[in-house]
Amino acid sequence: MSGNYAPLNCLKGVRVVDLTQFEAGPTCTEALAWLGAEVVKIENPKSGDPGRRIAASDPNKPDSFYFKILNANKKSATVDLKTPRGVELVKELVKKADVFAENLAPGTIERLGLGYDVLKEINPGIIYCQVKGFGEGSPYEKSLAFDMIAQASGGTMSVTGYPGEPPAKPGCTIGDTGTGMLMAISVLGALYEKKATGKGRRLQLAMQDSVMHYIRTSFAVMNQQGNKTAAPRMGAQSTSGAPAPCGIYPTKPFGYNDYVYIFCSRANPEHWTRLLKVIGREDLIEDPRFATNEERNKNEGFINEVITEWTKNHTKVEAMQIIGAAGVPAGAIHDTLELQNDESFQKRGIMQTMQHPDGDWVCETWPVRFDGKPPELKPSPKLGQHTDEVFASWLNLSSGEIEKLRSEKVLGQ
Amino acid sequence: MSGNYAPLNCLKGVRVVDLTQFEAGPTCTEALAWLGAEVVKIENPKSGDPGRRIAASDPNKPDSFYFKILNANKKSATVDLKTPRGVELVKELVKKADVFAENLAPGTIERLGLGYDVLKEINPGIIYCQVKGFGEGSPYEKSLAFDMIAQASGGTMSVTGYPGEPPAKPGCTIGDTGTGMLMAISVLGALYEKKATGKGRRLQLAMQDSVMHYIRTSFAVMNQQGNKTAAPRMGAQSTSGAPAPCGIYPTKPFGYNDYVYIFCSRANPEHWTRLLKVIGREDLIEDPRFATNEERNKNEGFINEVITEWTKNHTKVEAMQIIGAAGVPAGAIHDTLELQNDESFQKRGIMQTMQHPDGDWVCETWPVRFDGKPPELKPSPKLGQHTDEVFASWLNLSSGEIEKLRSEKVLGQ
Repeated sequence: MSGNYAPLNCLKGVRVVDLTQFEAGPTCTEALAWLGAEVVKIENPKSGDPGRRIAASDPNKPDSFYFKILNANKKSATVDLKTPRGVELVKELVKKADVFAENLAPGTIERLGLGYDVLKEINPGIIYCQVKGFGEGSPYEKSLAFDMIAQASGGTMSVTGYPGEPPAKPGCTIGDTGTGMLMAISVLGALYEKKATGKGRRLQLAMQDSVMHYIRTSFAVMNQQGNKTAAPRMGAQSTSGAPAPCGIYPTKPFGYNDYVYIFCSRANPEHWTRLLKVIGREDLIEDPRFATNEERNKNEGFINEVITEWTKNHTKVEAMQIIGAAGVPAGAIHDTLELQNDESFQKRGIMQTMQHPDGDWVCETWPVRFDGKPPELKPSPKLGQHTDEVFASWLNLSSGEIEKLRSEKVLGQ
Repeated sequence: MSGNYAPLNCLKGVRVVDLTQFEAGPTCTEALAWLGAEVVKIENPKSGDPGRRIAASDPNKPDSFYFKILNANKKSATVDLKTPRGVELVKELVKKADVFAENLAPGTIERLGLGYDVLKEINPGIIYCQVKGFGEGSPYEKSLAFDMIAQASGGTMSVTGYPGEPPAKPGCTIGDTGTGMLMAISVLGALYEKKATGKGRRLQLAMQDSVMHYIRTSFAVMNQQGNKTAAPRMGAQSTSGAPAPCGIYPTKPFGYNDYVYIFCSRANPEHWTRLLKVIGREDLIEDPRFATNEERNKNEGFINEVITEWTKNHTKVEAMQIIGAAGVPAGAIHDTLELQNDESFQKRGIMQTMQHPDGDWVCETWPVRFDGKPPELKPSPKLGQHTDEVFASWLNLSSGEIEKLRSEKVLGQ
């Protein structure tokens, strides 16, 4: 297994003071950590990032997998921000940092005395990142948000689900991870700029606005059609609409996720011919019912029957292999358990084993290969694991000073 | 309207040779363009990026909105890559570039003579980016993919839709834009590194792998539960599961998207009390049926009745305003038309007017504010609009030389 991933030091020397929690903020700073930044989570000594307890409510229990997967490659230092000295210490860290990130409830960071106006005074080079549910100037700017609220109010739920049925939530956490990715891009732009100017930036991102970024093609389709009706729910169909066939077809053994997606691109008319050949229906190639995309759409019911006649005799994986190899886009509906157990992801380094004190497990890494290899996975930190290391290396505090701060309940374990 | 956006030059001087098409590649290079990079699309002189024709099949018609929204702030140069001189010219551009990006079908870029091994020889500092459907080493590495195929095979469809129903496609194009964002982060990391080392990188990303990045919390929930069954479809519910109430509630006037999302966080027990107060049901605050999360889940049907009794007398916007102001997470299910027409997005610069030769229109921009302002929107390029400008400024070609290449059909209009 070794040799299929590599340490990545693109952001060597970049220091991040990370006050984020749950998912939208942590996924941003985790991306920076994958790329080699030194990311230090500042956590309250009692229980830390509340994400540690998602689906693991007992504080004595191991960290949740939710926390572990979203906080790989980071460090953790525990500081009590209810003590003035604790706040001062964070300011000292900020003086040494390039990036400060937070996604606390609206107004919280300012009440803690760590607002933008304060931190830019002590470090004009700081890149100060804030993620909130709604944007400054929005009628909802003081409202709370979580992933689902962002997906409701940002439009993704309105375009997800089957026609005629209520809206569904996309299974992907676009309000959270989707937001984190847009903020990470912006931080990296600001870091690049800072190399030239030495100056920091204030970056603000609303989860509602982020979500809209991921359905811009739905907005585009609506505009194309004259902006008279909202983009609809398309079931399993393509967002932009596509000529038949386009959708999911049932496969053996007809379980909950036994379907294969088949799609013949409008831009590649040969897909349709290839599909007919591979399913043994060459006889239909010249059939006038399928001569144009318009005719194919008119005869969608019949097309679906013909395809299902073939797919129902194959498993989804067979169907994906056979149709894909014939040069037609096809994808089995994989579920998370199948993907987790598919060793090809580990062989490629896309999944790696996290060696964690709570127990080893296999999880997704940053999926981009740099010169052939994804970055090395390092475990998420235990609460306060790096308190001593960070205050010693960033602020040159002696072990005696650190112990004193700990006995005064300013620092945690 | 002016003054709510600003030119952004974080990536000043960064040059990108962009051979991407459709969505997964173009959204990556567009993010770089928002941040101030000079991104030049190299397009075939006949019809260009096939995205120009999505839902706009006549080549004499205006560019599709799909193309316009995914290619803002870029330039376009037309080069016939079927001519040896055209390929040579692209290599000359690559010598002057920091980034080269492509997402053509597997094997195409190598057949064109612009593979990684060729370009790294002529520019060792090039950051060479490739997006494919499936990863190198995957059993499907030669298969074609589009957004839907990535969402099928990468697991997002298996966790989207209602329990007991077939899988649905998330309305957000995670296979495309989601991939573009992960590649943009990686390019920016490599650019930052290049400032120190002068060296380029080969970056490769598979759409199937990208999609998994956005459902890592589903993988985490499955791991938390012992990896025995796949993560299920949750309808409108939260991915991690949440105590009742969590979901969508119908509102006046009961149309297709007339729902409000309401959620009481497990981590904040006061949400439930606040909700009961704001809907006038203080009488239930001490009720033992709701004393714990477990009890609330047992009585979910009754909870939903109580909440619906209130929501059905309000519009979704009233409900979002009233419940949100009470400190409870709430979000109206906005559709794309409502969002497009909500002027608060334009006031904040999150949507801007694209002044385009085909006609002005209002579209989403990069949603992150830099020092209070999102970047300025510049129009997507018309096919070949910048051919002369790019070859003159990058390669110092004279107008005579450019005209000669054009008459030889190496460059387009």
